[in-house]
Amino acid sequence: MTLAEKEFKKQLESKVGLVNKVIKRILLEPGWIERELKKPVRYALVGPGKRIRPTIVLWCCELAAGSTNNNALIAAAAIEMVHTYSLIHDDLPAMDDDDYRRGRLTCHKKFDEATAILTGDALLTLAFELLAKQISESTIAVRLIAELSEGAGPAGMVAGQMADLQAANKKVNEKSLNRIHTNKTARMFRCAAAMGAISGGADDKQLNRLREYGLKVGLGFQIADDILDVSASSEQLGKTSGKDAQQGKATYPAVMGLEKSKKLAEKLADEAVAALKPFGAKADTLRYLATMLLQRRK
Amino acid sequence: MTLAEKEFKKQLESKVGLVNKVIKRILLEPGWIERELKKPVRYALVGPGKRIRPTIVLWCCELAAGSTNNNALIAAAAIEMVHTYSLIHDDLPAMDDDDYRRGRLTCHKKFDEATAILTGDALLTLAFELLAKQISESTIAVRLIAELSEGAGPAGMVAGQMADLQAANKKVNEKSLNRIHTNKTARMFRCAAAMGAISGGADDKQLNRLREYGLKVGLGFQIADDILDVSASSEQLGKTSGKDAQQGKATYPAVMGLEKSKKLAEKLADEAVAALKPFGAKADTLRYLATMLLQRRK
Repeated sequence: MTLAEKEFKKQLESKVGLVNKVIKRILLEPGWIERELKKPVRYALVGPGKRIRPTIVLWCCELAAGSTNNNALIAAAAIEMVHTYSLIHDDLPAMDDDDYRRGRLTCHKKFDEATAILTGDALLTLAFELLAKQISESTIAVRLIAELSEGAGPAGMVAGQMADLQAANKKVNEKSLNRIHTNKTARMFRCAAAMGAISGGADDKQLNRLREYGLKVGLGFQIADDILDVSASSEQLGKTSGKDAQQGKATYPAVMGLEKSKKLAEKLADEAVAALKPFGAKADTLRYLATMLLQRRK
Repeated sequence: MTLAEKEFKKQLESKVGLVNKVIKRILLEPGWIERELKKPVRYALVGPGKRIRPTIVLWCCELAAGSTNNNALIAAAAIEMVHTYSLIHDDLPAMDDDDYRRGRLTCHKKFDEATAILTGDALLTLAFELLAKQISESTIAVRLIAELSEGAGPAGMVAGQMADLQAANKKVNEKSLNRIHTNKTARMFRCAAAMGAISGGADDKQLNRLREYGLKVGLGFQIADDILDVSASSEQLGKTSGKDAQQGKATYPAVMGLEKSKKLAEKLADEAVAALKPFGAKADTLRYLATMLLQRRK
């Protein structure tokens, strides 16, 4: 491991630690979650997640403000809740029908389908409750809620999931493929970057740069994910591998081939790095993240 | 029909008309909903719903401000979206497994289960997006989002739905029954009243009175609903009747008998009316609503 790699890993672990700490605080604080839902919500949230989206929130806040602040921590917890809800619903039998996620049983396998549906609903709602109640300034809270709902809602992630399901076993061109995966995955990465920037008081120019970074990294991440699904084992992934092909999903390797997919992911990482230019050396961690996400093994 | 009844019906129809108009505007405006979701979201929202929750929002705003305003209209659309999402998920095969709702096929019957899950998710997220983007003052927007997420989330409606499922075919005492139905239904009625009061700039005293009214009316409404399920036909209800008993649900008639249930509903309506005392004659429509909801046939 190089020195830069070591430093990056240290930074990443410290941020994941911060995210997990906020999430645990919310889970322990009385008033947020009634007793019926405590167990499944905790099971879903306190798993071995990679916490990439909330880490982007924190790093983008640092870039704008010089350090992480409470707004960014709350925004990080909120986006992780929304991401977790989307996984729970995505894994349901009527959707992707997956038994494993993050190396453990999926929510509907551990509990039952009704519990999984309601736990997802609970996490999505709780994310907005957190932002409305735990962000100090109303103007910031409203902007964060607008970003998160726009990224996750019917013009963003949910639309992407719907399009993804509809495209299964159909002939899909590259333009449609990009649209599906931009909505399904990249929009939430852009949302993470924007939420961090807003939390850190970024100006419009910085905000737009970070949005651009998030979108490119997000799409690159999705391509890497598609590639992993055909090349890695279930053990490595913590979820069933080879599922995309089995379900006839419109993935990058399926539509444009493995080599061209890898090239596109590299191009997106380069563009993400380029968007960070005005930030100078301060953005090195985000640059490293962009290339790291393409080389991941899980 | 008495004169008071006629006047009430006229008022109600005019409010339902306003709610439907905002909802239609949102459905037509570009940007909110990507094309994949347009059809199911429209199917779910533009049904023959009773629109009771959004009507309460508008009436409570009128009571506080003298007239309906834009904030209340947006709040009304938002709470109707959350209510509609909860029905779609509630009707899923893994939940209450219902084929009919509001006199038409349920969303998963009209489309499929995956579409129904995602349409519910879309509506829930869109409700918060609306509040974040269409309310003029940030402080009001944040308060409305806090109310709605608290009422609908893991300490409110979702917890109630979870408890309701867990209580099926079990011995439930009156205390647990009240807790389940307060969370499942009454909290959202309280939320509707609070959102209207906040939209209309009510002071804390008025807000608390209206909250109290909403909670009592909501619980009374749920009891009436339980009674209808055993006494009305599927045709009258627009959904399958007798389902509660069939599924061993913890309902008021099942736990405390039909007569005692009717008495309790009347008591709640009286208490709801009593909470409105300081508002004088201006609150007559809300008073009428409290008693009307107990006499409904669907």
